[in-house]
Amino acid sequence: MFERAERDPSMDEREYERRELVLRTELLQQQYELLKQRDRAVLIVVAGIDGAGKGSAINLLNEWMDPRHIRTLAFGDPSVDEAQRPAMWRYWNALPALGQTGIVFGSWYAPLFKEAARKKPDMDRIGAMAAEILRFEAMLASERVRMLKLWYHLSRGAQIARIDAQLADPATAWRVSEADLKVRKKFDRLRTAGEIVLGATDAAYTPWRVVPSADARLRAVETAAAVLQAMREPLPRAPRRPPLQAARHGDRSRAMLEPAPGGSKLDEVDYERQLARWQARLSEQVRAKRFRKRSLVLVFEGVDAAGKGGAIRRVSHALDVRDFDIVPISAPSDDELAHPYLWRFWRHLPLHGRVCIFDRSWYGRVLVERVESLIPPATWRRAYDEINDFEDQLRRGGAVVLKFWLSVSRQEQLRRFKERRDSPFKNFKLTPDDWRNRRKWDDYMSAARDMIARTDTAHAPWIVIADDDKRTARVKVLEHIVKAMDEA
Amino acid sequence: MFERAERDPSMDEREYERRELVLRTELLQQQYELLKQRDRAVLIVVAGIDGAGKGSAINLLNEWMDPRHIRTLAFGDPSVDEAQRPAMWRYWNALPALGQTGIVFGSWYAPLFKEAARKKPDMDRIGAMAAEILRFEAMLASERVRMLKLWYHLSRGAQIARIDAQLADPATAWRVSEADLKVRKKFDRLRTAGEIVLGATDAAYTPWRVVPSADARLRAVETAAAVLQAMREPLPRAPRRPPLQAARHGDRSRAMLEPAPGGSKLDEVDYERQLARWQARLSEQVRAKRFRKRSLVLVFEGVDAAGKGGAIRRVSHALDVRDFDIVPISAPSDDELAHPYLWRFWRHLPLHGRVCIFDRSWYGRVLVERVESLIPPATWRRAYDEINDFEDQLRRGGAVVLKFWLSVSRQEQLRRFKERRDSPFKNFKLTPDDWRNRRKWDDYMSAARDMIARTDTAHAPWIVIADDDKRTARVKVLEHIVKAMDEA
Repeated sequence: MFERAERDPSMDEREYERRELVLRTELLQQQYELLKQRDRAVLIVVAGIDGAGKGSAINLLNEWMDPRHIRTLAFGDPSVDEAQRPAMWRYWNALPALGQTGIVFGSWYAPLFKEAARKKPDMDRIGAMAAEILRFEAMLASERVRMLKLWYHLSRGAQIARIDAQLADPATAWRVSEADLKVRKKFDRLRTAGEIVLGATDAAYTPWRVVPSADARLRAVETAAAVLQAMREPLPRAPRRPPLQAARHGDRSRAMLEPAPGGSKLDEVDYERQLARWQARLSEQVRAKRFRKRSLVLVFEGVDAAGKGGAIRRVSHALDVRDFDIVPISAPSDDELAHPYLWRFWRHLPLHGRVCIFDRSWYGRVLVERVESLIPPATWRRAYDEINDFEDQLRRGGAVVLKFWLSVSRQEQLRRFKERRDSPFKNFKLTPDDWRNRRKWDDYMSAARDMIARTDTAHAPWIVIADDDKRTARVKVLEHIVKAMDEA
Repeated sequence: MFERAERDPSMDEREYERRELVLRTELLQQQYELLKQRDRAVLIVVAGIDGAGKGSAINLLNEWMDPRHIRTLAFGDPSVDEAQRPAMWRYWNALPALGQTGIVFGSWYAPLFKEAARKKPDMDRIGAMAAEILRFEAMLASERVRMLKLWYHLSRGAQIARIDAQLADPATAWRVSEADLKVRKKFDRLRTAGEIVLGATDAAYTPWRVVPSADARLRAVETAAAVLQAMREPLPRAPRRPPLQAARHGDRSRAMLEPAPGGSKLDEVDYERQLARWQARLSEQVRAKRFRKRSLVLVFEGVDAAGKGGAIRRVSHALDVRDFDIVPISAPSDDELAHPYLWRFWRHLPLHGRVCIFDRSWYGRVLVERVESLIPPATWRRAYDEINDFEDQLRRGGAVVLKFWLSVSRQEQLRRFKERRDSPFKNFKLTPDDWRNRRKWDDYMSAARDMIARTDTAHAPWIVIADDDKRTARVKVLEHIVKAMDEA
C-alpha cells in the first residue's frame, strides 16, 4: 500500500506549474460551487508518517482555496472540560456545516494509531476500534459529509534526508521537533501502524489516499487533486454496517405502552410523602462525591399531555439549580439542519457532576419525523443504530442514561386536552398539532413500539410509565432514577 | 431599601388566586408577543438573602411561562476551561437571543457580593467593580437586552422560622443546605452586603427590585409582576458611562496610515532569513512553559489587498497547527444579529497556551459598518468604549492583545487589484465590494484614524504597518509580535 510512496516519486517544476494553475483554479471554482449547492460538507483527515510535511499540506490547502470557508481543526490532548465528555464530543462540535470544508488533524484516529504502533498491537482491540470508526464515518456519509483521509508517506531514506536538510538550515531548524528526531528510530513501527490502520478503515465511502511526500511539488499536486475529487464526485452511498450495540429487542407489546383502564390513584398526602422521599434520595446522590466522576442524562418522550413537563419539574426540584440543565427540543434551526442529525444533541452533553434533562430528544427522528413523513424511511431506519451508538458513547463517557416513555390512555388525553383548552394559562400548551397528533394515535404507538424494541439497551434502558394518574407517574419516574443511580 | 421586605408582608389565598389567574395569562401572552416582536431579550438576575426561596422563584417562572423559551443559567465555580477565559466569558456565551428570556443565578454579581460581605469591605474595590458592571449592563441595554434584577429578602425572624419549618418536616428537611444553616449567623452581614451592592448598581436601565420573600404567595406574585413589567414596558435608554479604560488618544495623523511613496524593498534572501529568525523566536515563545498561563489574541485589519492574509499565514506557519485558530470575520449570521454585537467574538476566545488570529474583527463596527451606514452613528460611537472594555477584559484574562492596521498606498492597491483580476486563482479575492470600497478610500482612512485614536490602549495597542513592500510588512508584523511577547 505504500510501495509507490516509498519510491519517493517527484514532479519537475514545469509540470508542477502547469498543474498548479489548473488545480488552484478548479479548487476555487469547486469550493464556490459547494457553497452554492450546499449538497455536502467535506471533511479531510490528515495523518501520516512524522516529518512527511502534513503541516505544509494543510497550509497549502488554506493558501490555494478561500480560507474563509475552510476550518482547520487541530486536536492535541483533550482539555479538562473535553475529557469529561465522550471522546467524540470535541469532533462532533467541530463538524463542518453543509457547503463548508473541515480539515482535521489529531482526529479520532489518534488512539487507533497509538494502539497499532505498540510493540505488540492488540488486534482484537484494533478491530473493535476500527469497526466503531467505520460506523461513525458511515453515519457521516449518510448525512452528506464527504470524508477524505490523507496519509502522507515517504521512504525512510527520504525522511532522514528531509529532517537532516531542515536541521542544517538555520532558517528551518526550529521547525524540527523532538518528536521528529525520535521518529527516525521508529520508522518501521509507524509504517506498520499505518498499514494496519489504513487496511482496517478504508472503505469506498470513506477512502484513504496515500500521498507520496518526499517531493513537495508532487505532494502539493496530489493533495489538491484528492480534495478536488472529494468535492466534485457524486456522494458515495454508505452501506449499513453491523450494529456495535444491539438492542435487547425485548418484546414490548403495544398494550404495554398504554395504561390499563381504571388504575388506582395516589392520594395527595401519600404522594407528597413519597415524592419528598425520592427527591431527597436523588438530591443526596447528585451531591455525593462519587457522582463527581459521573453525569446523568434523562430523556423524556411520550404522547402529548402525558405529563412530561410535570415529571421533569418534580425531578429538577430535587436538584440544585446550578447542577442541571433542561434542554427542550423542538423543530431544528437552519444551522442544525446543515449538520448531521445528532450534532445538536452532542452540544448539550453535561460535564461530570451534572444532570441534563432532555424534554423530547433525538428520538424525534423515529417518532414525529417518521410518523409525519418528514424524512425518507431509510433515514429513520438507520437512526436506531446511530442512536444506540450515541448512547453507548454517553455511557462510556461516564453518563447514566435513562429514557422515559410517558403515556396516558386516549380518554385521559382527551380529558387533559379539554382541561388545557379551558384554562387561560394552560391553553398555550395545546396547539392544533396536538389534535392532529391525536388523530394519528395508532401511528405514534407503532413508532413508539418499534423505537423501544430497537433502542432498549442495557446501557440506556427505556422505562415505560403508562399511568393515567399523574402523581403515580411522577413518583415512579423518581423512583426509577434513584434506583438506576444506586446501581451505577 | 429593605424596610418593606423586612416587615414580611403576606397575601391571602383568595387575593393570590385572583392575581395568579391574571398574571399567568398575561405573562404567557407577553412571552409570545416577545417571541413574535423580537424587539428585546429579557435577562433576569436572581439574587438575595439565603433561604429566601430564590430556587422556588426560578421554578415558578418556568412553571408559569412557556419553559421552552426560558433558559435558566445557573453558575457555580468556573470549570477549568472557563477559568482560562476572562471572567465574563461564560455569561457572554449564555446571553439570550432577541425574543428569549434568560434567568441568571450565580451571576457577575457573585464576586461583588463576596467583597461586600467581607468584615471590612474595600469600598474602592467595590466602586470599581460596580462601575464595571454598570458599563456592561449599559451596553446590554443599548443592545436591547432588558435587565431585571431581583433581590429576595425577608426579616431575620422569618428566615429562621422558614429554615426551622423546613428542617422539622422530613419531606423538606433535605432541601436545607449547610450554607442555609450557617447563614443564620451571618444575616446582618449579608443584609449589609445587599444594601451596598444594590445601592451601587441600581439604575433606571438596569433596576433592582426587592421581593419580600417570607410569604410564598406574595413572593410569587411580585416576581411575576416584575417580569411582566420588564417584558412590556418601553425599553429604557442607557446613558453613556465614563470609560474605564481610556485610549491613549495618541495623535495619529492620517498620513501615518498610508505608506510613504518609494519605500525600500527587502530582497528575497534577506526576507527569508529575517522571516525565519522571527518565526523561530515566536515558535519558541509559544511553546515556552510560561505561555501556558497566557494566550495571544491577534487582530488584523486594513484596506483591501493590504496583505492581511499573507501576513497571517507567515505568523501561523511559525505555530503548531494544534496551537492556533484563525477566525475569519464576515457578515453576521441571523443568530449573531440576535445577540449583542460582541457576542460572536467572545465565543472564539482562546484557552491558555493558544493563539487566536482574527482576520478582520470587532473593529468592523467602526470601519465598514460606520462607513457604509449599516448602523446609526450612536451605535458606532459607543462601540469604542465597549471595545476598550472588552480588550481590557482579555488582558486581565491573561491574553496578550495586539492589533495590526495594514495599509498600502492607493497606487499599490490598484496594482494588486489588477494582479488579482488577472490571476485565475486570485480573482476570487477581488469582489465588486473591493472596487466600491476603493472609491470610499478617504472615508475608510478617516474611520481608521478615529478608530486608532479611540482604541489605541496600553493593554491592546494598535500597530500601524503601512508599507507597499509585502516582505517588509510581514517581517515587521512578526517582529512586533515577538517583542510584545517578550515584554509580556
